[in-house]
Amino acid sequence: MKRIKTAIVGASGYTGMELLRLLLTHPGVELVAVTSRQEAGKELGRVFPRFAKAAGAGLVFTAPEPAGIAATGAEVAFLALPHGVAAPIARGLLDCGVRVIDLSADFRLRDAAVYEEYYGQAHPAPDLLETAVYGLPELRAEAIRAARLVAAPGCYPTSILLPLLPLLRAGLLDATSLVANSLSGVSGAGRKAELSLLFCECHESVRAYGIPKHRHLSEIEQELSLAAGTRVILTFIPHLIPVNAGILTTTTARLREGVAPEAVGEALEAAYGGAACVRLLGRGGCADTKHVTRTNFIDIGWQYDARSGRVLLLSAEDNLGKGAGGQAVQCFNLMCGLAETAGLQNF
Amino acid sequence: MKRIKTAIVGASGYTGMELLRLLLTHPGVELVAVTSRQEAGKELGRVFPRFAKAAGAGLVFTAPEPAGIAATGAEVAFLALPHGVAAPIARGLLDCGVRVIDLSADFRLRDAAVYEEYYGQAHPAPDLLETAVYGLPELRAEAIRAARLVAAPGCYPTSILLPLLPLLRAGLLDATSLVANSLSGVSGAGRKAELSLLFCECHESVRAYGIPKHRHLSEIEQELSLAAGTRVILTFIPHLIPVNAGILTTTTARLREGVAPEAVGEALEAAYGGAACVRLLGRGGCADTKHVTRTNFIDIGWQYDARSGRVLLLSAEDNLGKGAGGQAVQCFNLMCGLAETAGLQNF
Amino acid sequence: MKRIKTAIVGASGYTGMELLRLLLTHPGVELVAVTSRQEAGKELGRVFPRFAKAAGAGLVFTAPEPAGIAATGAEVAFLALPHGVAAPIARGLLDCGVRVIDLSADFRLRDAAVYEEYYGQAHPAPDLLETAVYGLPELRAEAIRAARLVAAPGCYPTSILLPLLPLLRAGLLDATSLVANSLSGVSGAGRKAELSLLFCECHESVRAYGIPKHRHLSEIEQELSLAAGTRVILTFIPHLIPVNAGILTTTTARLREGVAPEAVGEALEAAYGGAACVRLLGRGGCADTKHVTRTNFIDIGWQYDARSGRVLLLSAEDNLGKGAGGQAVQCFNLMCGLAETAGLQNF
Amino acid sequence: MKRIKTAIVGASGYTGMELLRLLLTHPGVELVAVTSRQEAGKELGRVFPRFAKAAGAGLVFTAPEPAGIAATGAEVAFLALPHGVAAPIARGLLDCGVRVIDLSADFRLRDAAVYEEYYGQAHPAPDLLETAVYGLPELRAEAIRAARLVAAPGCYPTSILLPLLPLLRAGLLDATSLVANSLSGVSGAGRKAELSLLFCECHESVRAYGIPKHRHLSEIEQELSLAAGTRVILTFIPHLIPVNAGILTTTTARLREGVAPEAVGEALEAAYGGAACVRLLGRGGCADTKHVTRTNFIDIGWQYDARSGRVLLLSAEDNLGKGAGGQAVQCFNLMCGLAETAGLQNF
Repeated sequence: MKRIKTAIVGASGYTGMELLRLLLTHPGVELVAVTSRQEAGKELGRVFPRFAKAAGAGLVFTAPEPAGIAATGAEVAFLALPHGVAAPIARGLLDCGVRVIDLSADFRLRDAAVYEEYYGQAHPAPDLLETAVYGLPELRAEAIRAARLVAAPGCYPTSILLPLLPLLRAGLLDATSLVANSLSGVSGAGRKAELSLLFCECHESVRAYGIPKHRHLSEIEQELSLAAGTRVILTFIPHLIPVNAGILTTTTARLREGVAPEAVGEALEAAYGGAACVRLLGRGGCADTKHVTRTNFIDIGWQYDARSGRVLLLSAEDNLGKGAGGQAVQCFNLMCGLAETAGLQNF
Repeated sequence: MKRIKTAIVGASGYTGMELLRLLLTHPGVELVAVTSRQEAGKELGRVFPRFAKAAGAGLVFTAPEPAGIAATGAEVAFLALPHGVAAPIARGLLDCGVRVIDLSADFRLRDAAVYEEYYGQAHPAPDLLETAVYGLPELRAEAIRAARLVAAPGCYPTSILLPLLPLLRAGLLDATSLVANSLSGVSGAGRKAELSLLFCECHESVRAYGIPKHRHLSEIEQELSLAAGTRVILTFIPHLIPVNAGILTTTTARLREGVAPEAVGEALEAAYGGAACVRLLGRGGCADTKHVTRTNFIDIGWQYDARSGRVLLLSAEDNLGKGAGGQAVQCFNLMCGLAETAGLQNF
Repeated sequence: MKRIKTAIVGASGYTGMELLRLLLTHPGVELVAVTSRQEAGKELGRVFPRFAKAAGAGLVFTAPEPAGIAATGAEVAFLALPHGVAAPIARGLLDCGVRVIDLSADFRLRDAAVYEEYYGQAHPAPDLLETAVYGLPELRAEAIRAARLVAAPGCYPTSILLPLLPLLRAGLLDATSLVANSLSGVSGAGRKAELSLLFCECHESVRAYGIPKHRHLSEIEQELSLAAGTRVILTFIPHLIPVNAGILTTTTARLREGVAPEAVGEALEAAYGGAACVRLLGRGGCADTKHVTRTNFIDIGWQYDARSGRVLLLSAEDNLGKGAGGQAVQCFNLMCGLAETAGLQNF
Repeated sequence: MKRIKTAIVGASGYTGMELLRLLLTHPGVELVAVTSRQEAGKELGRVFPRFAKAAGAGLVFTAPEPAGIAATGAEVAFLALPHGVAAPIARGLLDCGVRVIDLSADFRLRDAAVYEEYYGQAHPAPDLLETAVYGLPELRAEAIRAARLVAAPGCYPTSILLPLLPLLRAGLLDATSLVANSLSGVSGAGRKAELSLLFCECHESVRAYGIPKHRHLSEIEQELSLAAGTRVILTFIPHLIPVNAGILTTTTARLREGVAPEAVGEALEAAYGGAACVRLLGRGGCADTKHVTRTNFIDIGWQYDARSGRVLLLSAEDNLGKGAGGQAVQCFNLMCGLAETAGLQNF
């Protein structure tokens, strides 16, 4: 297999580690650059003992400079950086001819004003928004294949969008009735030295946060609205639970009058029957994060509550996998003409 | 303080242990009997090393025979037994003049037909249903004080009912819009040797279960309907999360047209401003199970999502505390004329 | 009961929280001052939601100034401060006539040179070392009763010393053969915003640290040597395990030639048969932290390995309880003429 | 790559699942049979949702009958069965010409009498003991390559033997001074519906067990004695800690008089400098299970305690990986002439 020269920009957080884990063993990848301001000058295998004997462990962290990254011959760069920081580096890399898969929020929204509303700052590169492709492979594989700039979706959006989109597109749901509860592992909060993320603050604890207007709502509602053909508002309640990895989402919505419950299963089957990374559990199928951690799968089950007329959608993914790094690699595979699941055959 | 002679029937499960923990140090209690078929003949302190040096550790487990229990002089008995098993023992104890606080589902429903629908068997003692008082002290303290038979509520119901009831009573909510997501610690599933409850099956796992018609819905909807003055249907999704103890519930509901969000805080304040075991966190207040574990408090916060017109109610309790044993002791205190929080001043 | 006016200096860490938990409900305590530089000016119940409805929740944090603390009428002060910081405040309080129970390492060692060797700085108050009493109540209750300055032992030392001391005093062990492995919950590392203490760094992880010369060795060997009547060296390997609270220690030592294994049980029985806070599990008794968390008990079991001639001592305690705050309260009770277990009757 | 027809006998426990995880994606393996009495007739992907989309998920569980397994064309069979159960099936398979890698204890000991002493039953196939090779690839790769029956070592033994063997062979240690403390994840106890393995019994708990004569001591001492050239006795204390996977072992031993501490590092380097699955962390290097979970690496660090003259050996492995399934696959690779780490390149 031809190996694509690849860079990871911002490789010292949890998403960066997941990208390393996947790309160090990806048969179509030659890792040529890893960057981290704080680890610059150190060997990859020293910074992350887990990778000490990987081929590539000798790679030395550099500073995140686009020209330097391009000089390594990198054809594609993954960006695992904070929002606001990613955009200028993406621009620099694109200008050097490097294709970019950005895992931050910088290029997920089509409308710079929505970005400003949700992220509290002017968009750092509004002219690039048109170029960027929202990287949900199950939704727009063609656009991803051709893209020079992919905005990999957030972890919550992936778990909410994949079950809902086919149902909204098929007009099965009362779009004013959507309520999503998501339970996320602590790695979703990033690798930051904050009191609230200490072991003793998270263990034997569960709490909601970021309500009523979590930042991810902006991209979720953008995509839901596109699918529904009308403005969709979602009530979204994210929670932090004491697991390292995994997101479980339960979304409820009323079926439109006259819609048979079976239509839900049919719409999911039609959308994902052939999808490599979606596993449909069927009616009554109960998603459990323990079956998806460290994979690129999202498991989707559903149930119908005849008493209330609501459909319940249950989805489970690894927030760092299908919710971040794995999905980004899936996009990469499409962009590079590789098998969609190359390097993602982990169980 | 006069000490009430008290029995715990079925003291070898997690709820039984919590009752032991509370009653062994309760200043108004003299524990005179603990029963367990499988531990009969063994000393309490041998069965539960945690209590080995408690006053009362020498008490010997007996079989759960009403006459034997009554013969110890027990004035009140707590029943921590499976549903179906509790009812005949409750009857036997009542016949002997022992007041009963039953923690099973046997006496929570007013309608024996609903019991049969949800529990799959004919009600074992329908004639007693009228006698029983549903033991939510914040709701019906007076009836509990006078009761001979109290049905202590389930853990999920407590966390859902306490936030919702005042709002429904005040007519603030669209009663067709209720969706509750509850996250429960594993102790809620009981102390049973089942594969699905093994450490390795629960750790790094989260899953929904019991949808769409969990048994607790029967008592929840009974009480919601009473409060609303109309039949209320709830969409309820319970989840199992990897903590020992604690329930976090997030309930969403649309405000009725014309209702100001502030009315939510006012109704909660009016209902619970003086409640000893409810802590109101106010608008934006974020309930976290880590603040309530091993206490008899329920923490309630709320938020308003102006975009969707929904109020979000967040509640946290210990599923074994305010959700089971603690609440039962709170009922006991009322029944015995003790201070409502006697023996519950744990932090 | 007469209530002693009491202060907690440095009440915002995990040890401080445990002291709060115990003292807020201690029948012989009136809490008159809680200090914390970072929380000064805030109400206790706001800083710690767990205590929001405790009597005393309205107490306002102040800065840790001895004169101000003394002005509240405080008769006894608990110090939960870093080493080096505690000593000058202890001196200030003592000068104001306040008795001090210090939970730092500042007054545990008799020899200022050993302090400098292990803590890397000159002792901040060497003249006070003679005054201080090492606060192991099972060892020197009389001295503690009379003390004006008690140095509460560290968490590891308590779990190692209590099983070993009677055996060394009785001359049962080859004092050159001691090896102790301790497994500590993460709260033992303190409430510090450090990467290594994040949930995701500790969960599904176990590691040794601080070898071969952990600071606690200084006080451990001081006390072991006093008991043995000769200089004792211990090989000590502390580990961090993913629990919030608890220490399990396994200590191995060769029996001296000619010593019968039963002598181990007899020596433990003789030393602790009447001790309120030690629970002897006997030969084959297996200590488990889950039976001691949130109590002031230490559980001690032992076993004899005839094949190697070694005795195995197993001890379990709550690192914040008998290993820190609980033990400090036990000392307080002795100092104030209260029942030794007053306020410690938790299970 | 030529693909070897392979069977997994007893694939429904945790070790079986790890074998499935590794073999389903092993480039040199064609899985032709998976057996489980209780799952017979069901599809692999149904029994284990994690593997639902793996190539091979359609394989149907059969009963563990040697003839049936051989009829699938299996060339090699992994046995993940209880001791006592494995031996007769191994014999049947060998008789059919199938090479066997047994992960039970049945063929680890050279002496049937020792088996009977430790496992409490007569050895089920003593005549096969001479044939079997104890499968530590770092120790006896040549014998494994040629073996028809490999006895894959236990999880504890691997973590204890690998650090100790080179030091004993080099005569660096006082062989009477060995003490090993091991901390194991709960998956090591197997997938059994037992109360003691419930989530709520293990979470927030740590305990030693199996002292003073854990079954694994038999194989550990056999191998230690072979290396030392003299009978070696080990004091061994296994513990259960609340993680899913991972073993951390700390072994202490006195250096023989005159041995320089550096000799420890040199002996480890000489033994494992070229070993594909051992990562040497050097003096002061701190093994942490979080770097080895789901890999086939064992990390080994060491430290010298000059005060006591003891060397401390720290080793970390995944109990299901290098401690069981991964190591078995490593043996398989040697037996089949594949690259030693084929199918084990996971991070």
